[in-house]
Amino acid sequence: MKKLDLLTPVGIFIGMTMIFLAVFANAGAGNFHFFMQWTSIVIVLGGLSAAIFVNFTSKDLKLLPTVFKETFHSNQYDLHELVEIFKNLSTKARREGLLSLERDVEEIGDPFIEKGVLLAIDGHEEKTIKEIMMAEVIAMEDRHQKSRSIIEKAGEYAPAWGMIGTLVGLVLMLQSLNDPATLGPNMAIALLTTLYGTLLANLVFIPMSNKLAGNTEEEVFVKQIIIEGVIGVQSGQNPKIIEEKLGAFVPARKKKNDAEETAEEREAVYDQA
Amino acid sequence: MKKLDLLTPVGIFIGMTMIFLAVFANAGAGNFHFFMQWTSIVIVLGGLSAAIFVNFTSKDLKLLPTVFKETFHSNQYDLHELVEIFKNLSTKARREGLLSLERDVEEIGDPFIEKGVLLAIDGHEEKTIKEIMMAEVIAMEDRHQKSRSIIEKAGEYAPAWGMIGTLVGLVLMLQSLNDPATLGPNMAIALLTTLYGTLLANLVFIPMSNKLAGNTEEEVFVKQIIIEGVIGVQSGQNPKIIEEKLGAFVPARKKKNDAEETAEEREAVYDQA
Amino acid sequence: MKKLDLLTPVGIFIGMTMIFLAVFANAGAGNFHFFMQWTSIVIVLGGLSAAIFVNFTSKDLKLLPTVFKETFHSNQYDLHELVEIFKNLSTKARREGLLSLERDVEEIGDPFIEKGVLLAIDGHEEKTIKEIMMAEVIAMEDRHQKSRSIIEKAGEYAPAWGMIGTLVGLVLMLQSLNDPATLGPNMAIALLTTLYGTLLANLVFIPMSNKLAGNTEEEVFVKQIIIEGVIGVQSGQNPKIIEEKLGAFVPARKKKNDAEETAEEREAVYDQA
Amino acid sequence: MKKLDLLTPVGIFIGMTMIFLAVFANAGAGNFHFFMQWTSIVIVLGGLSAAIFVNFTSKDLKLLPTVFKETFHSNQYDLHELVEIFKNLSTKARREGLLSLERDVEEIGDPFIEKGVLLAIDGHEEKTIKEIMMAEVIAMEDRHQKSRSIIEKAGEYAPAWGMIGTLVGLVLMLQSLNDPATLGPNMAIALLTTLYGTLLANLVFIPMSNKLAGNTEEEVFVKQIIIEGVIGVQSGQNPKIIEEKLGAFVPARKKKNDAEETAEEREAVYDQA
Amino acid sequence: MKKLDLLTPVGIFIGMTMIFLAVFANAGAGNFHFFMQWTSIVIVLGGLSAAIFVNFTSKDLKLLPTVFKETFHSNQYDLHELVEIFKNLSTKARREGLLSLERDVEEIGDPFIEKGVLLAIDGHEEKTIKEIMMAEVIAMEDRHQKSRSIIEKAGEYAPAWGMIGTLVGLVLMLQSLNDPATLGPNMAIALLTTLYGTLLANLVFIPMSNKLAGNTEEEVFVKQIIIEGVIGVQSGQNPKIIEEKLGAFVPARKKKNDAEETAEEREAVYDQA
Repeated sequence: MKKLDLLTPVGIFIGMTMIFLAVFANAGAGNFHFFMQWTSIVIVLGGLSAAIFVNFTSKDLKLLPTVFKETFHSNQYDLHELVEIFKNLSTKARREGLLSLERDVEEIGDPFIEKGVLLAIDGHEEKTIKEIMMAEVIAMEDRHQKSRSIIEKAGEYAPAWGMIGTLVGLVLMLQSLNDPATLGPNMAIALLTTLYGTLLANLVFIPMSNKLAGNTEEEVFVKQIIIEGVIGVQSGQNPKIIEEKLGAFVPARKKKNDAEETAEEREAVYDQA
Repeated sequence: MKKLDLLTPVGIFIGMTMIFLAVFANAGAGNFHFFMQWTSIVIVLGGLSAAIFVNFTSKDLKLLPTVFKETFHSNQYDLHELVEIFKNLSTKARREGLLSLERDVEEIGDPFIEKGVLLAIDGHEEKTIKEIMMAEVIAMEDRHQKSRSIIEKAGEYAPAWGMIGTLVGLVLMLQSLNDPATLGPNMAIALLTTLYGTLLANLVFIPMSNKLAGNTEEEVFVKQIIIEGVIGVQSGQNPKIIEEKLGAFVPARKKKNDAEETAEEREAVYDQA
Repeated sequence: MKKLDLLTPVGIFIGMTMIFLAVFANAGAGNFHFFMQWTSIVIVLGGLSAAIFVNFTSKDLKLLPTVFKETFHSNQYDLHELVEIFKNLSTKARREGLLSLERDVEEIGDPFIEKGVLLAIDGHEEKTIKEIMMAEVIAMEDRHQKSRSIIEKAGEYAPAWGMIGTLVGLVLMLQSLNDPATLGPNMAIALLTTLYGTLLANLVFIPMSNKLAGNTEEEVFVKQIIIEGVIGVQSGQNPKIIEEKLGAFVPARKKKNDAEETAEEREAVYDQA
Repeated sequence: MKKLDLLTPVGIFIGMTMIFLAVFANAGAGNFHFFMQWTSIVIVLGGLSAAIFVNFTSKDLKLLPTVFKETFHSNQYDLHELVEIFKNLSTKARREGLLSLERDVEEIGDPFIEKGVLLAIDGHEEKTIKEIMMAEVIAMEDRHQKSRSIIEKAGEYAPAWGMIGTLVGLVLMLQSLNDPATLGPNMAIALLTTLYGTLLANLVFIPMSNKLAGNTEEEVFVKQIIIEGVIGVQSGQNPKIIEEKLGAFVPARKKKNDAEETAEEREAVYDQA
Repeated sequence: MKKLDLLTPVGIFIGMTMIFLAVFANAGAGNFHFFMQWTSIVIVLGGLSAAIFVNFTSKDLKLLPTVFKETFHSNQYDLHELVEIFKNLSTKARREGLLSLERDVEEIGDPFIEKGVLLAIDGHEEKTIKEIMMAEVIAMEDRHQKSRSIIEKAGEYAPAWGMIGTLVGLVLMLQSLNDPATLGPNMAIALLTTLYGTLLANLVFIPMSNKLAGNTEEEVFVKQIIIEGVIGVQSGQNPKIIEEKLGAFVPARKKKNDAEETAEEREAVYDQA
């Protein structure tokens, strides 16, 4: 249910292009090399890594590779299909009993739905099932939030270390004002760390951490629908009510389109809202 | 129930006029062209789009056209009429039964009221009706919040990318200080991206996202009144209590005016508060 | 129960005096006229109005006159008198029945107390009375919050538009650096919009919106005491318990002073805390 | 239970010393007088007072003297003694009845404990006692929060008015650039208001409002323990359970030390955690 | 269960190296001494200590040594082992009774688990056990939050006092502009306090306070699992349900690995999610 999210690399590429455009439009192509000051890049990246090291434990930092991979992927959920799944499960459970669902949930292939239905088959109470499933959702949310906060903090430390680099450069420049010819270029170099820090924060770290937050939010949303669905199946609710309840979470436009497709649903008046 | 909100285009027009006024008052009409640096505009808009691409998924971005359309419209609800509707529905339901309302709700033409009353007619319990209707309100709120946050983030990235453009311009300017004659104009161009970024944020993105938030808040407010009303009708509450309860949400002044119009209400002492 | 709040005009007057003092102390009385640049004032006020127009709907803006009037007034509540009122109402209700209160509440002259007691006389349940009264409090809070946020947003847009005006001025100034004699005065004019924006925000809009927030908070506080009191009267609670409960909300010092005045209360040991 | 908090004056003294040190180290003792520009001080203090006047009502401002006195005092609570008090009260209440506690609570001398126990003696229910005592705690918290917010807002307006003073100075300076000799000193004077504003905020107002917030938080914490204790005594709970419950709030280290002192407690294994 | 957290000193070391690198790359090794201005360091540290003194009480400051030690340590919890412990305790309790656990919990060596189980053995009710244990968790959280906030506030005051030092330096420099030769170096010295303040905040105080917050959060998380486990054991829950419930908190990957190790768990289908 994960899909490559091309927007992340595309966005970073467009952002870099804008910088090249800015340089090119102001001063021509010959000035690109000036914007590649490796020591300045090392200072900003090194400084923010230093702050990240003090900020987190080694256990937290181990989550970093997963986090980066995550930003280039997005979840792919078909909410309408999800409603359909639980409608079917509930219909079958009412006809043939909960035990008959064991094979079906394996075929669905979603471990969270499977876990929930198996808990129901095991005869656990509604409250226990809800507790166990919610505990997993909360634990997942906490884990994501922890790993996301590394990127988030990097977005805060990057401009700060850009400014620290600029301050060091300014102090050095001001200390030896006797040669006015070097004044401009020295200050230009000093400003580069601020440029790097601001760019890293506003093109990479802050947008990335927001994308991760959005992904987590959606995953929690989907898992809560699943919990509602499992509880509905477990307590033998009417498939129609389950569809009604879960359907309320699906965006309106989507439902209308579906209604146009299936003649059966066209009759249910209050489904076209 | 949607109306064109003229204030959005009027506000943007006034804001642009202020900029023209500022240029004209300081330096005469001949300088307008200087404020139209296409590359600077491309850098700010391109940079903030880049950040938005990294920040959101393609599914989120598909909401953008709807969002922009939404900022030029505002909701049009007559709270007093709403109270009246539920007073009438409740009176009829108590006299002729819930089933008699089917035709009436169709005439009202509000799909949310219709959905609620049809759920009541279907014989669902109060708790179930509330759950299904609230789920729809929460889903709408989430959807609006998600789409609004694109505008909101644009309002954060715009000034940042304005500053990035200015930093690039400053670095280039400082690098070649040998010609003092070009110093001023170069710095002027560098500052333009900051001006564009700040203007976009404070005239377009931030105010627009606030307008959207206000619209959503009001829609949620109205839908909650509708839920209260539907529950009142479903549970066969006294029309007078329904009027009392829903009426508490209507602003005081409005109620007084209405009281002056209808003699009947003038007798209800505690309605003039 | 509303009183003119002289502190608002007095504060604005003192603030303007400080500006005059700053000009006078630095450069003598002859420079006052320089700080009155009408175009700069128009740009800041026009720009922030433009942002406000995009930010709000016309329905919101209609609340503006009421809001401004409100900042020059403050509520006048005597909490101790309020406790006394409910003590008396409860005493009478226990002796002569709820119906006997109809005349009394009319004399008190507070429409919210009147509404509550009349609901009790009508025989509504505790839960219904609480719901209707709380709905009114929440609706009032929402309404105040909405209208206050116009002032609040003006306090955010004012410095931003001050900066936009300054940026326009700086760009124009830098564009024509050939005449050093005009450099200073031009930059002085450019800085004026920032001064206006900061002054408007920190002398008028931000303090005003805070005053409104404080007034609303107090009004909600008083209305919650009234609800507690009405419920106490309706459920036939002991006047002593009502006094105890409501009295807990009254500041300690006040209660001690009152205790010194009335000998009766001096005996109630735990009332002096 | 209030003690003079020497840290407040000591901190302000150290802060002023740092400023003197900074002047002395940079430019020698002869420059101190330059930092005492009375008009600048008046502008910053006058401006922030003006904003405070618009921001608050006269009733709020009357709390100011108490607030200032409060910052130089801190609460002095012995949590362990508190646990002991309620253990003893509960033991006596179980042996001799609630009525026997009247004399004891007078001797303790804490009006809040006294109030609570007297309510219990009067035969009020647990819920009523909790409601009345919590109402007092919440009212105290609100009152403290209101008065603290005056200091808090002063910490926000001080830097803003420092900047307003500097802007006025800069505008005046730029207006008459013809005499370069006065340029430096004029700008120095302009910067002084920013220095005053930042210093007032970061040495006086912000730290003071934080100290007040900490004091209030602790007072609420202690009062909540007292409420727990009173309820325990009122409902005739086992002294051991009361000790266990209240003891959980006392910091771990403290308990270990105490355990070392009293042999009796050393046996209670789970008390050494 | 505490382990030395090497990342804190390593991070600070890398951060300092970046500064040296910045100086070295811009101006060679001979300029290091210039960045060591003892009076500037004293001003920033003294000023922020002054603000801290005003901000906190002496009781709060006594927590400081513990806090600093804490930042160089991190918790070491094996969540899987914890689940195992409670599974075993519950199995034994069901077979041999709660009393049989007294020896076992002593061997586990965790005072919080011991306290909880002893409370269960003493025959306290579920609600009482939960209350006492939660009170301890909340008290610990409060204590940590209080001590952490000293570091947090230092991170806010450090840049402010850096700016105050720079303002004093700028005022002194501008006051005597007659000697242009000293202009640069004087301004360089003035900027140093800003550099120190920003560095202290972004390398030491802000990251440290975040690390402490993370540690506390994890400790609370683990203690909540322990409370769940103790309640499960006390109420005689099925070891399988306890494992299921607590297992939901353990990250997914971990569980899969464990499943690969122990053949027994491989059969539990819904444990591999």
